[in-house]
Amino acid sequence: MRDEKITGGKPWNPRYTYWPARRVGNLLFISGTTGTDDEGNITAPGDIVEQTRQIFRKWGPLLAEAGCSYDDIVQTVDHYITTENYRGTAAVRREFFKQRLPTSTGVQVVGLLRPHALIEIHGIAVIPEGK
Amino acid sequence: MRDEKITGGKPWNPRYTYWPARRVGNLLFISGTTGTDDEGNITAPGDIVEQTRQIFRKWGPLLAEAGCSYDDIVQTVDHYITTENYRGTAAVRREFFKQRLPTSTGVQVVGLLRPHALIEIHGIAVIPEGK
Amino acid sequence: MRDEKITGGKPWNPRYTYWPARRVGNLLFISGTTGTDDEGNITAPGDIVEQTRQIFRKWGPLLAEAGCSYDDIVQTVDHYITTENYRGTAAVRREFFKQRLPTSTGVQVVGLLRPHALIEIHGIAVIPEGK
Repeated sequence: MRDEKITGGKPWNPRYTYWPARRVGNLLFISGTTGTDDEGNITAPGDIVEQTRQIFRKWGPLLAEAGCSYDDIVQTVDHYITTENYRGTAAVRREFFKQRLPTSTGVQVVGLLRPHALIEIHGIAVIPEGK
Repeated sequence: MRDEKITGGKPWNPRYTYWPARRVGNLLFISGTTGTDDEGNITAPGDIVEQTRQIFRKWGPLLAEAGCSYDDIVQTVDHYITTENYRGTAAVRREFFKQRLPTSTGVQVVGLLRPHALIEIHGIAVIPEGK
Repeated sequence: MRDEKITGGKPWNPRYTYWPARRVGNLLFISGTTGTDDEGNITAPGDIVEQTRQIFRKWGPLLAEAGCSYDDIVQTVDHYITTENYRGTAAVRREFFKQRLPTSTGVQVVGLLRPHALIEIHGIAVIPEGK
């Protein structure tokens, strides 16, 4: 059974105590992700819609490395700290999820660790057979 | 590998950007569910116990469509916004989970999107072989 | 397909409406766990780092009974109620996760049910073939 660290082709700091994603067999687990750039800074402070777009953008290389695509994501869990414009993130989902849709949960939490993060999303994908 | 939208036999509005449940292989993922009726209104405002009952009731057709039952649910995650009477929801679980029990997590969050929702639960089931 | 209640070799009170862990096929689901002792009391009130250590300690017998180890945990979700010293829990992860790391999500919530619990973690492991 395959069991792989998935980083989307990027180096991963060994001081971190988690992996950005991990493929085991045909399952792909994706860590809670915020809308950061390569330096770890939130790309769009104050803009939950663009932060959500950035989160899903960051998932692209993870999915590709694992041999699957957005359509294979079966679960997303949104944690957001403001409801302002949260409903606008649905349109972002439409940009990424085309044929098949994940199940979804969204809850408002007290806080996220990443400064200026308004939303953090984690997910699970099921990789098609033969991939 | 099967990969199916699961709606419990109900029509599903194409403007939604998630599915109520999705079966992939022998796994069933269930979206965060609140205690709403077919019109999307909470059936029991102010009553977390009855809302929990309604959530699990709504899961019945999803599980049936996927070929499994309550006993096959292996994970539930409760997000609630009040602790008042939350412990009363355990008795509701006993009404639905008979032989085998899911793992469980329950945390109090700031808010849920659905007006008047006191609790939202998402879950995962593993479908028995041959189903 | 195996489908087993996993208690880590301990008796499990039948009044509970969930199992501490459940193995189905090669998947292990672990319930939200707090840093309690055998009597259900938090071992280290006020100390999120030690509570986290106790949580992972409690997972050891669950993993062993299911035929796997810490390296097989692929997802952890942390719910904490204070950010104070939360970053100190990363060092605890290093004590347990040696070769392969789980994906991770951590969010601050309003409250946890267990009195004096500062953090609750739930997880998923994938059991190696042949185990």
